[in-house]
Amino acid sequence: MLVQFSIIPIGKGPSLSRDVAQVLKIVDKSGLKYKINPMGTVVEGKWDEVMHLIKSCHRSVLKNNERIVTTISIDDRKHKKNRIEEKILSVEKRLNKSLCK
Amino acid sequence: MLVQFSIIPIGKGPSLSRDVAQVLKIVDKSGLKYKINPMGTVVEGKWDEVMHLIKSCHRSVLKNNERIVTTISIDDRKHKKNRIEEKILSVEKRLNKSLCK
Amino acid sequence: MLVQFSIIPIGKGPSLSRDVAQVLKIVDKSGLKYKINPMGTVVEGKWDEVMHLIKSCHRSVLKNNERIVTTISIDDRKHKKNRIEEKILSVEKRLNKSLCK
Amino acid sequence: MLVQFSIIPIGKGPSLSRDVAQVLKIVDKSGLKYKINPMGTVVEGKWDEVMHLIKSCHRSVLKNNERIVTTISIDDRKHKKNRIEEKILSVEKRLNKSLCK
Repeated sequence: MLVQFSIIPIGKGPSLSRDVAQVLKIVDKSGLKYKINPMGTVVEGKWDEVMHLIKSCHRSVLKNNERIVTTISIDDRKHKKNRIEEKILSVEKRLNKSLCK
Repeated sequence: MLVQFSIIPIGKGPSLSRDVAQVLKIVDKSGLKYKINPMGTVVEGKWDEVMHLIKSCHRSVLKNNERIVTTISIDDRKHKKNRIEEKILSVEKRLNKSLCK
Repeated sequence: MLVQFSIIPIGKGPSLSRDVAQVLKIVDKSGLKYKINPMGTVVEGKWDEVMHLIKSCHRSVLKNNERIVTTISIDDRKHKKNRIEEKILSVEKRLNKSLCK
Repeated sequence: MLVQFSIIPIGKGPSLSRDVAQVLKIVDKSGLKYKINPMGTVVEGKWDEVMHLIKSCHRSVLKNNERIVTTISIDDRKHKKNRIEEKILSVEKRLNKSLCK
């Protein structure tokens, strides 16, 4: 399944890049395929491996913060693999042009 | 922690009440405190018990659908309990009136 | 359409009840039907009236904060009215019991 | 402000790429800066221009569907521009490596 998540610490200053960097180190070590975008991180994997990863990230940010808000969106489609690449490719085919920029 | 989730089957007809009813039976059996609202279900519990519940609900809906989108929002605040009741009460105190209707 | 929204100020202390109370005063004055829950506010109305309301709430919280995150979920179904009441009722009929608590 | 949105038609088949392609044509014509990712589209602009765009996309998909769910996440930070590029760059600086892949 394809999962986007973001973790927002509340009650610190307005810059979150240190917490985001900490999360991305954990994501990178997980071995799961991932892509980052300006609003969150998209990972692909099975329920248990993805949720184990997000729990580790959530716990890690909670250590340094009194309150955090974590948002998770799951797109689960049977019999489809490598959707982290394929979803955009199938739209590009329809538009007949590359969307990567 | 306080968690809202919703599960949307894609590719069925526009009425989702049967799938929602199926999910609520599972939530009710879990023993966790919960409240439903027109856009989702809010539950309170620890990470593992809440995620175990959402996984069961997700799997149950996926059985009858080829594709589903599940959205999860987590509000985790240290040293606070019974937030499913207290969050609204603390706002009501500030407004000096009841918001239940 | 049915719309849930929540506004999270980042970079203040962990208590958000003052900002939430401020938002609810604006929602209450709008005249739109609404329900609050522990994770957000659900309102019902047409696109322009709902978005005008959320813009007012967003602007009001941004005045006192350097950074805020606002999340909006829209469930738009043709030919259906009073869904803020009816959605839960249609699930209750299937379950054959009241879910209000 | 930085805004991610996604529009999900309910009640069609499981493939959404045609609706996504239709949305991206509208986004591309808007002239706003945007990036697509496997879970949504991120645009940058002022409240009115971004919401005008999302309303057009929502209306366009609703024409061919009886029910749709649109999700919008707004990250609004004062005195910051070109965040669609800068947010990732500021994390890359901390990690001392490029995250684009």
